[in-house]
Amino acid sequence: MSKEKHGLLIALSGPSGSGKGTIVKALLSQREDTVLSVSMTTRQPRPGEVDGVHYHFCTREQFEQTIAEDGFLEYAEYNGNYYGTPEAPIRRLLNEGKNVILEIEVQGAEKVMDHRSDLISVFITIPSVEELERRLRGRGTETDEVIRKRMETARYELTRAFRYDYIVLNDEVELATARINTIIDAESMRYSRMENTVLEVLEHVRTQ
Amino acid sequence: MSKEKHGLLIALSGPSGSGKGTIVKALLSQREDTVLSVSMTTRQPRPGEVDGVHYHFCTREQFEQTIAEDGFLEYAEYNGNYYGTPEAPIRRLLNEGKNVILEIEVQGAEKVMDHRSDLISVFITIPSVEELERRLRGRGTETDEVIRKRMETARYELTRAFRYDYIVLNDEVELATARINTIIDAESMRYSRMENTVLEVLEHVRTQ
Repeated sequence: MSKEKHGLLIALSGPSGSGKGTIVKALLSQREDTVLSVSMTTRQPRPGEVDGVHYHFCTREQFEQTIAEDGFLEYAEYNGNYYGTPEAPIRRLLNEGKNVILEIEVQGAEKVMDHRSDLISVFITIPSVEELERRLRGRGTETDEVIRKRMETARYELTRAFRYDYIVLNDEVELATARINTIIDAESMRYSRMENTVLEVLEHVRTQ
Repeated sequence: MSKEKHGLLIALSGPSGSGKGTIVKALLSQREDTVLSVSMTTRQPRPGEVDGVHYHFCTREQFEQTIAEDGFLEYAEYNGNYYGTPEAPIRRLLNEGKNVILEIEVQGAEKVMDHRSDLISVFITIPSVEELERRLRGRGTETDEVIRKRMETARYELTRAFRYDYIVLNDEVELATARINTIIDAESMRYSRMENTVLEVLEHVRTQ
């Protein structure tokens, strides 16, 4: 009897400006075996946001009920709204053999590491500080004070990179996406995920 | 200041008949950053064997001296001859940034695991027992008794697969070689090997 393959749980994190959102989009368009985890939030949907796609929108009561049931891999409150990563849908997707991506802030990723020892954590970094500043300045509408604060946060987040399994340099989106594909493919060859292949051969050797 | 990159130490192992020798040859022809560890032995060179290429040939006294100095990652005695994996040349190659491949029997690989926690261990397996038997029969000159013994050894070796980091299926040599390339590329993105990249960016953020 052959068990179904279990999917991989992968956190993609990194400083703001590291380009993780763009990489995730590219990755999902390339891999049919991989889906994005959808966060839960109590904030109001913005125009164009679809429930179940961009977020699972819920009430404060529903969110707090899920907290009480220990149903989040991580959650936080910003500006009076809750945001969280619910575990149940992730568990279901993994059981169906899908790889699940968490696109997640550095602090959130560390909380998930503490919950799930099977998490594959990837820290996306940028090639230079000039490049980071260029990206943080974005469309050029931010004040110097905002940029300074973002650089400070990025600096802090870079000091947390040591907690991650893998570091992926985002010098070009295509290259960075290929690197994450390589990590997923390698992790799929871990003994725990290939055990059935070995056991099936063994079974036949035994019964010869 | 940027430290030089350290190479990866990779054991490729698997049952006799798994095709590890062919895969190693293909891998080395594809990767300039990767070399094969040369074993030491006290047996006499066979015609065509070159000292330092196929083996480091040495005397019994030299071999036992190296044992006394704890200079082997693993060694064993077969038919009155010693065979061993000396650590010093491996350490030198890793420091030069080369990946070093140990093409090694299952029992030897397990001894190296106990010595080197940085070892990346890969178990090469075959898709089916029929394929294994076909390969073990080789050129068809072996007796049934020899085949039976080889199957028995292969069976034992397959039960040890759980000790390895990765399992690579050798259904086709090209595919199996690509899989090992994927593992090497992914392992090169481990935090420990990418630390300098992160620290360099951090250094510049600090001094802004």
